[in-house]
Amino acid sequence: MDKYEHVVIVGVGLLGGSIGMGLRARGLAKRVTGCGRSPQKLESAVELGAIDDYQTDLARACRSADLAIVCTPVQQVVEIALECMQAMPGGLVTDVGSTKATICQDVDAAQTGQAAFCGSHPLAGSDKSGVEFARADLLVDRLTILTPSPNTTESTLAQTARFWQSLGSRTRTLAPQEHDAAIASTSHVPHIVAAAVAASTPAELLSLAASGWCDTTRIAAGSTDMWRQIICENMGPVTESLKSFSREIQTWLSALEAGDVKKIQKLLDAGKQNRDSVGN
Amino acid sequence: MDKYEHVVIVGVGLLGGSIGMGLRARGLAKRVTGCGRSPQKLESAVELGAIDDYQTDLARACRSADLAIVCTPVQQVVEIALECMQAMPGGLVTDVGSTKATICQDVDAAQTGQAAFCGSHPLAGSDKSGVEFARADLLVDRLTILTPSPNTTESTLAQTARFWQSLGSRTRTLAPQEHDAAIASTSHVPHIVAAAVAASTPAELLSLAASGWCDTTRIAAGSTDMWRQIICENMGPVTESLKSFSREIQTWLSALEAGDVKKIQKLLDAGKQNRDSVGN
Repeated sequence: MDKYEHVVIVGVGLLGGSIGMGLRARGLAKRVTGCGRSPQKLESAVELGAIDDYQTDLARACRSADLAIVCTPVQQVVEIALECMQAMPGGLVTDVGSTKATICQDVDAAQTGQAAFCGSHPLAGSDKSGVEFARADLLVDRLTILTPSPNTTESTLAQTARFWQSLGSRTRTLAPQEHDAAIASTSHVPHIVAAAVAASTPAELLSLAASGWCDTTRIAAGSTDMWRQIICENMGPVTESLKSFSREIQTWLSALEAGDVKKIQKLLDAGKQNRDSVGN
Repeated sequence: MDKYEHVVIVGVGLLGGSIGMGLRARGLAKRVTGCGRSPQKLESAVELGAIDDYQTDLARACRSADLAIVCTPVQQVVEIALECMQAMPGGLVTDVGSTKATICQDVDAAQTGQAAFCGSHPLAGSDKSGVEFARADLLVDRLTILTPSPNTTESTLAQTARFWQSLGSRTRTLAPQEHDAAIASTSHVPHIVAAAVAASTPAELLSLAASGWCDTTRIAAGSTDMWRQIICENMGPVTESLKSFSREIQTWLSALEAGDVKKIQKLLDAGKQNRDSVGN
């Protein structure tokens, strides 16, 4: 297991905070510095044990770092990753963004050669956000997808994989575009659907919402600013995936309007089969 | 709080079993008899403490009963409720079906006058089924909707309300049709949507499903036989409600295809606002 002298976490929220706690709990870093814009939030991250200290000046924070993890909203990742890379020659920079194609392409195109970069996406999101929900074991038994770009060497990919594994995560490697198409289907479209169910429920009926409604719409409570960025960064694959979902809804409407009981049973069975194969 | 001499529960699964456990834990019934077709399942309900004893002959079970609760799949409720009513003059019969219009109308039309009937729907379903998941406190702080039909007297309605309240549930009264339209939106359509998300996720991507996908699709794991019956009993309101959801998805597709970032933000905000107002 690699150990780091100085790790910088940019954006100390649910994920960044959990990474910090995990590194500290497992003794994987001599020092963990949080970086962000709000000294108040960073102060509370120190109090919660997510980081050792903090810094609002990114370049200064990175000066002595050998590893930086960018945990900001996706639309800030490229700029911040490049700034980290320039400040820490020989180091490793990764991120946790839910979209990968644009990030990996833009970092690759502008790569300065000072530090190595490999994109990552730990599948450990939540409808909760903020360091107050962070946990040292958030990544344990989760899956982190690694998305190397053409400039990512085998050794950088392997180091990035070891990093996530050292926090208890499994890892899998996908091309950035492949990642974005897959996650559009398994995460981004479910988010849109959850928001659509919630929004299309008449307000006067919300008092009748029970556990089924609550489960189905849970992720719609997540940060809408964060999710708008994710959806806008992955517009093409999300649109394709939502069209395919919409066709499934049209099939349902046809079956209902025809009173086709057998078809309704088949549609329910197909959903249960996929759901049961996943568990949890 | 009313106490009962002999309560019959027809269909001792998650809900029926929980009602039995609740009655026994709170000392609300001198005797609780489970009724069903499978002696084996009823035997295990006795072992789990959900019922005192069991009977496979419904008329015999009801002979000395003053309260019967029909907890079978919805398409069997009318026949069984009428059989109970005939066997227990002066008693009260209710049910737990997720659809109410057909049940209340058909029971009302055939009413023999032997026992009183008031439809009920405790909003306490789950993707789990079976008495092994039953809990004495399942109904605590849940909402039970009461749906009196024209033949239901004020006193029968009040007694039915007291029954559910004695198990810890809140109650609200709605006309059967009003109930079905509301629950189509808050429960039946979310179920269809969960099944559609699960079914439209390509099988080869299921290994990437994380907690968001799992929450959104959770209820699709429920019994498809039970849900086919519910949807088919409430075809009209479900179709209307699913159309309204489908229009929301079309609005999303238009916003995505136009790259309308402001609209996407608004759609997410509307979903979050409704979701946040519900909690849990």
